[in-house]
Amino acid sequence: MVRDLPVADLVDRALAGEPRAVARLISLVEDDSPRLREVARALAPHTGRARVIGLTGPPGVGKSTTTSALVSAYRARGKRVGVLAVDPSSPFSGGALLGDRVRMGAHAADQDVFIRSMATRGHLGGLAVATPQAVRVLDAAGFDVVLIETVGVGQSEVDIVALADCAVVLLAPGAGDGVQAAKAGILEIADVFAVNKADRDGAETTARELKHAISLGRREIRGPSWRTPVVMTVAARAEGIDGLVAAIESHHEWAAARGEFAARRLARARAEVESVAVRELRARLGELRGDLLDRFAAEVRSGSLDPYRAADEVIAAVTGEGWLDHRRGY
Amino acid sequence: MVRDLPVADLVDRALAGEPRAVARLISLVEDDSPRLREVARALAPHTGRARVIGLTGPPGVGKSTTTSALVSAYRARGKRVGVLAVDPSSPFSGGALLGDRVRMGAHAADQDVFIRSMATRGHLGGLAVATPQAVRVLDAAGFDVVLIETVGVGQSEVDIVALADCAVVLLAPGAGDGVQAAKAGILEIADVFAVNKADRDGAETTARELKHAISLGRREIRGPSWRTPVVMTVAARAEGIDGLVAAIESHHEWAAARGEFAARRLARARAEVESVAVRELRARLGELRGDLLDRFAAEVRSGSLDPYRAADEVIAAVTGEGWLDHRRGY
Repeated sequence: MVRDLPVADLVDRALAGEPRAVARLISLVEDDSPRLREVARALAPHTGRARVIGLTGPPGVGKSTTTSALVSAYRARGKRVGVLAVDPSSPFSGGALLGDRVRMGAHAADQDVFIRSMATRGHLGGLAVATPQAVRVLDAAGFDVVLIETVGVGQSEVDIVALADCAVVLLAPGAGDGVQAAKAGILEIADVFAVNKADRDGAETTARELKHAISLGRREIRGPSWRTPVVMTVAARAEGIDGLVAAIESHHEWAAARGEFAARRLARARAEVESVAVRELRARLGELRGDLLDRFAAEVRSGSLDPYRAADEVIAAVTGEGWLDHRRGY
Repeated sequence: MVRDLPVADLVDRALAGEPRAVARLISLVEDDSPRLREVARALAPHTGRARVIGLTGPPGVGKSTTTSALVSAYRARGKRVGVLAVDPSSPFSGGALLGDRVRMGAHAADQDVFIRSMATRGHLGGLAVATPQAVRVLDAAGFDVVLIETVGVGQSEVDIVALADCAVVLLAPGAGDGVQAAKAGILEIADVFAVNKADRDGAETTARELKHAISLGRREIRGPSWRTPVVMTVAARAEGIDGLVAAIESHHEWAAARGEFAARRLARARAEVESVAVRELRARLGELRGDLLDRFAAEVRSGSLDPYRAADEVIAAVTGEGWLDHRRGY
């Protein structure tokens, strides 16, 4: 059984591309297994090669269909493709329209495609830790492209896409979609926009509104000189997908030439270290000082202490008095 | 200008129920202002009275319409009602169907209703800190009921509702909705279910599926003896809303009698202290040790260090060597 293999063997098999070993490693990552540290250490030297593409957008915009079409497009270019779906409504997660499921079925038979749905619930901050670690598994296992599909609502979910090498934001035609996207805070993370279902009424209007928003918001859009392209797609018929791949490529070339690619990867590594550190600290707060935390929580509940002072005390207990000295001198 | 008032004056005015002072305090909370500690300290003795009701559900299920109907129902019972909308698609956030906006307009003229949309983007973990602090502002300002509406996708967003005094999960009729809700991880947080749009085909089926899921999942549903009720509503016509309020009341009576109410509030205070502590630690990681974090991030990026060991080193730098000793003996 793959399940019972030592981590070193699992990693060797994953590096050789064995799907069950890859799946098992991602499970270890999702469960925040104690063996995770061993996994992380073994994978590190083999990472950094995969191109990470994030896709997000409002519900119903066709994210999964677009992901599927991109898988086909990259396969046609000879790339091995890994997919992480952080989206409860994704067909990759099981709850889907039949048509989508059938389309996915085609990829399921392809040994060079690995599709995995990430649990979207669990411990606080779980997603922020688990998703980049799962990317590392796929990267080390030799997938050339890793697509991360997340629903475009939810702070953690949008943050994950923002740190991909290329963040693709999908919108569908319709009055006010542009505005709603802005409200959802996903406009500013886009490296590439795709207006999907572009055969529907209003697609041109949505594209025009987006271009207008881009021209107004230049300083807020990433990178001073990157003009976020707006691509029209009908993912269900694979129309416009080559254009989308070309836009992602253009962004990569621009980002690599301008140092943005390296900067983004550094930012991602930084966020990764930070989220692991925060998780570790949180675990220590919760487990080692559980009684203390409960005592302060009771005081906060009764109104005799505010949460900020309670947090100071808890942190001081975990890190030593140095923290309080720091705060007092702040 | 309210904006320029000292915190003590702002708090006095908010305690007296002045809407602009309440709004200003919530802005301070959202911005994570340095004055936030002062705000938290001043508010603490005045908190603990409001009943906090969370509403969540998949997009399109009618959360905002239900929230609006609940506002009317509680107003009819003489309660002052505060609403926090953590939902980019909510009409409270501005992106809405005209019909909804008009309905909200009615409440806007009511001095005993305060409606606020919370920013769903920002710093990592921002929502987990800002939302409970905004609840404290409304609680201290004398709102009897605080309704928190969040979109039912997104880990942070669902976590917020799970810690309300009563978590209401909305579903709409339709094949597979029950299954999709399960995937979204919102079934297990429900204290009360509402099947909204109950005049549509399939409402009875959805209710039956839910009841079946509840009967199967008893051990996973909160509280060993609380049988999560399933209420049928047509919020757009205010139908079934009295039944929903009655179900929320029943849950409260059960929870208060069984000690679940106190336990939930303690859990909420604990989560609040924890999220503030984590945020403080994160700020310290990021600001005081930024260079160090960047150095380790660069090593992680190059593959010469894995993120877990990098996190250990960063934490050790922040908290002292005690942390590494702890890790090594783990």
